[in-house]
Amino acid sequence: MNTLEYMRLFMEPRSVAIIGMSRRAGRGSPDILDALRHIGFRGQIYPVNPHTDYIRGTKAYPDVASLPVPPDVAVIVTPRHIVPQVVKDCVERGIKAIIVFAQGFADADARGKELQAEVVRIARGGGARVMGPNTIGTANPFVGFTSGLARVKFQRLPIGFIAQSGSLVITVADWGILGKGIDLGNTCDIDFADALEYFEDDPQVRVVGIHMEGLSNAQRFIEVAARFVRKKPLIVLKTGRSEQGARAAQSHSGSIAGRDEAYGAIFRQLGILRAADLEELGDLLKAFAFLPPMAGRRVGVATHSGGAGIIAVDIGERYGIEMPRFAPETVAALRPIFPQWHTLDNPLDTWPAAFTSGDPSGAYRVCLQAVLADKSVDGVFFTAAIFNRAKSWSVSEPVLETAEKFRDKPIVCSLQGPFYIQETRVLEKTQRIACFPSPDRAIRALARMADYAEFRREHLRT
Amino acid sequence: MNTLEYMRLFMEPRSVAIIGMSRRAGRGSPDILDALRHIGFRGQIYPVNPHTDYIRGTKAYPDVASLPVPPDVAVIVTPRHIVPQVVKDCVERGIKAIIVFAQGFADADARGKELQAEVVRIARGGGARVMGPNTIGTANPFVGFTSGLARVKFQRLPIGFIAQSGSLVITVADWGILGKGIDLGNTCDIDFADALEYFEDDPQVRVVGIHMEGLSNAQRFIEVAARFVRKKPLIVLKTGRSEQGARAAQSHSGSIAGRDEAYGAIFRQLGILRAADLEELGDLLKAFAFLPPMAGRRVGVATHSGGAGIIAVDIGERYGIEMPRFAPETVAALRPIFPQWHTLDNPLDTWPAAFTSGDPSGAYRVCLQAVLADKSVDGVFFTAAIFNRAKSWSVSEPVLETAEKFRDKPIVCSLQGPFYIQETRVLEKTQRIACFPSPDRAIRALARMADYAEFRREHLRT
Repeated sequence: MNTLEYMRLFMEPRSVAIIGMSRRAGRGSPDILDALRHIGFRGQIYPVNPHTDYIRGTKAYPDVASLPVPPDVAVIVTPRHIVPQVVKDCVERGIKAIIVFAQGFADADARGKELQAEVVRIARGGGARVMGPNTIGTANPFVGFTSGLARVKFQRLPIGFIAQSGSLVITVADWGILGKGIDLGNTCDIDFADALEYFEDDPQVRVVGIHMEGLSNAQRFIEVAARFVRKKPLIVLKTGRSEQGARAAQSHSGSIAGRDEAYGAIFRQLGILRAADLEELGDLLKAFAFLPPMAGRRVGVATHSGGAGIIAVDIGERYGIEMPRFAPETVAALRPIFPQWHTLDNPLDTWPAAFTSGDPSGAYRVCLQAVLADKSVDGVFFTAAIFNRAKSWSVSEPVLETAEKFRDKPIVCSLQGPFYIQETRVLEKTQRIACFPSPDRAIRALARMADYAEFRREHLRT
Repeated sequence: MNTLEYMRLFMEPRSVAIIGMSRRAGRGSPDILDALRHIGFRGQIYPVNPHTDYIRGTKAYPDVASLPVPPDVAVIVTPRHIVPQVVKDCVERGIKAIIVFAQGFADADARGKELQAEVVRIARGGGARVMGPNTIGTANPFVGFTSGLARVKFQRLPIGFIAQSGSLVITVADWGILGKGIDLGNTCDIDFADALEYFEDDPQVRVVGIHMEGLSNAQRFIEVAARFVRKKPLIVLKTGRSEQGARAAQSHSGSIAGRDEAYGAIFRQLGILRAADLEELGDLLKAFAFLPPMAGRRVGVATHSGGAGIIAVDIGERYGIEMPRFAPETVAALRPIFPQWHTLDNPLDTWPAAFTSGDPSGAYRVCLQAVLADKSVDGVFFTAAIFNRAKSWSVSEPVLETAEKFRDKPIVCSLQGPFYIQETRVLEKTQRIACFPSPDRAIRALARMADYAEFRREHLRT
């Protein structure tokens, strides 16, 4: 079996054994059975528990040997000391993909390191592969599978996320931008390169994010990542950057964080986008998943707020974004709806038109279409406030209509006012517009998209 | 009349004239009348409109001269060309505080600059003061007044915010952290120093944030700010930092942005905290408003996620935060609820106790109280995931109980999981805990609070 075949067992299993599942699970404690039902798993579930015949309606088996067939994947939720024995049972029953939940391995003491080594030795000897330990495993809403312990918010989004911490997978899910998730935990066996290979030709995934504490096999990661970035953007949040952070990483996932500069150099050379923090990682996943590519670094800004426009200019300069003057045709298209005294420049202050017209929505439509049509502009940042729910104040309508008309340029938004949450939801549900909580983050997302496009042009001749 | 008396008219008026208010206002267009009713204004409202006797049930007056008494404040919403005449009418009727809504003054063309100068000349000649032009004016939920145009989310929070852009006031309101707001617009007359003086001894306000494009009277600002920071923390977001941004600032509010380094030097010397972006401004307003002071730079971390702990360490190192080893008594208090193999270090990974106990809430209580009690810790960062609504998963209960017990140390949180929004709301409603969307922002907030405490110790000997 090759890597991809193993990864498919972890990501798209048709049957799963949960070994060591408590009878008492349910409301009040984490519960994989409930999580699987909630995500709509249609495959076979085999709880393994020596003390009961049924766990909340699902037939249980006393041990792995009694399972009627070898399931595609086994999730082991026992305490650490019996994990090697359970892995042995799994291997003997012919199970090829094993997820180990428990902490207390390379993330803990000397005994834990021994136990982890033992797990790997047993699995390899039997042709099985192991994800973890210290992991919540995988989540794949496209097939309705999760080994995680809770009803988190997975969606069929073209976003893959590989982390060394279940908590970060959950955070990305909370933000509504998790498609397929993989928590590698201690990476005792399955590691970043394996997970990346799975996403490489996956038609359901358009962009991949990684949370990395350390690389155990840098050479293989570099090989796979170099191939990967030719096909899809890859964003990495590398933690354990500081000295104390590197020590903490070692005791969290047993990872050797290594020198931060070395990682930085590798990422740059490979064309991997490095995220400064978790929020930037999330922003870029969303931007690449939802938007058409940025062809260049030139941004047009249409803003109801001169103040927000200035912030956009500041941040644009920091990230090498140009804000060109608008073409004469653009100014001509805008002129009729603005008072004569208003300067029609980039950033365009849309408020004098929106406020005086009595029809802000209509004014925004004219502004957006004029700016998008401008040939000197590669992408657009739009910001507006929604003060009431009347149709004449709709922001989503003109934005979506414009996006439909100009499919080759990205539009990023940042909305304000009492109805900004509702309108943001309407825009993002289409998966064609990306919204951000501040002008800073919207412009930064466009800039990093431009970085990736530049990398492709320079190195891949696309 | 002194500055404070004028500012009270703008902030706490008992009567307001709205001059140039459209009859057609209402659903579908911005509406001060509706906004005033929504915020619960109990004073007298005098709409001025020559074409009607009543505007939605409120008696209207044909002109300013006909007003039965001079109102505390006048809000002028007419187009720019008649503003000087209206200001003249106001002055002649004895009105002392005037808010000018319209754009098209120093933010626009040469004629606009002339008009603005004329407005100032007329007002000064008549002993009146002007806020704006190009402003939505003020909002004060403590007295139920707003001159703004919409039902934005004001709350009685001890937070003052002074901006040169109505949009930023609205954003801060959207984030649920606006107490009293002032939009200075073009600062033709009322400027930062005036607004700051109002907040200086205001018992309803504990912290003030400023969005500044440029200072017209730097000397007076420095005098007032130097006094202000002895009493309360002051956070400034200075925009127009880049060259193009400075030009944009001039055409937005007519401000001279000036050299960014000069501003930075002044802020540092005065002990003003400079925010890197809008989100940091918001984070710091919340932190200072809700939390007791940080006595030093030493942070204890209790996290359900080793991954989040490492991020906290990284960001802590960047901001000069120390994460000391826990005292032996702390470790002794924690030991009983953790498996033996688990290292009890700072950051403390709480998950092995939370997960195995079946009572995460109880485990968090033990962890929080032990870490807060540690004498080597000045503040605490706590992160956890809420996977279901059972009492045994409550995070808010142990956090609030601990905050009640240790009132002299700040607790910042970052919550995850399907119920993180609800639990965050419960915590923040108490105005004693501050929550942030990522470990990065939580730790940064503690660090900047420590900066302010250090400034006070060094310069003010408190």
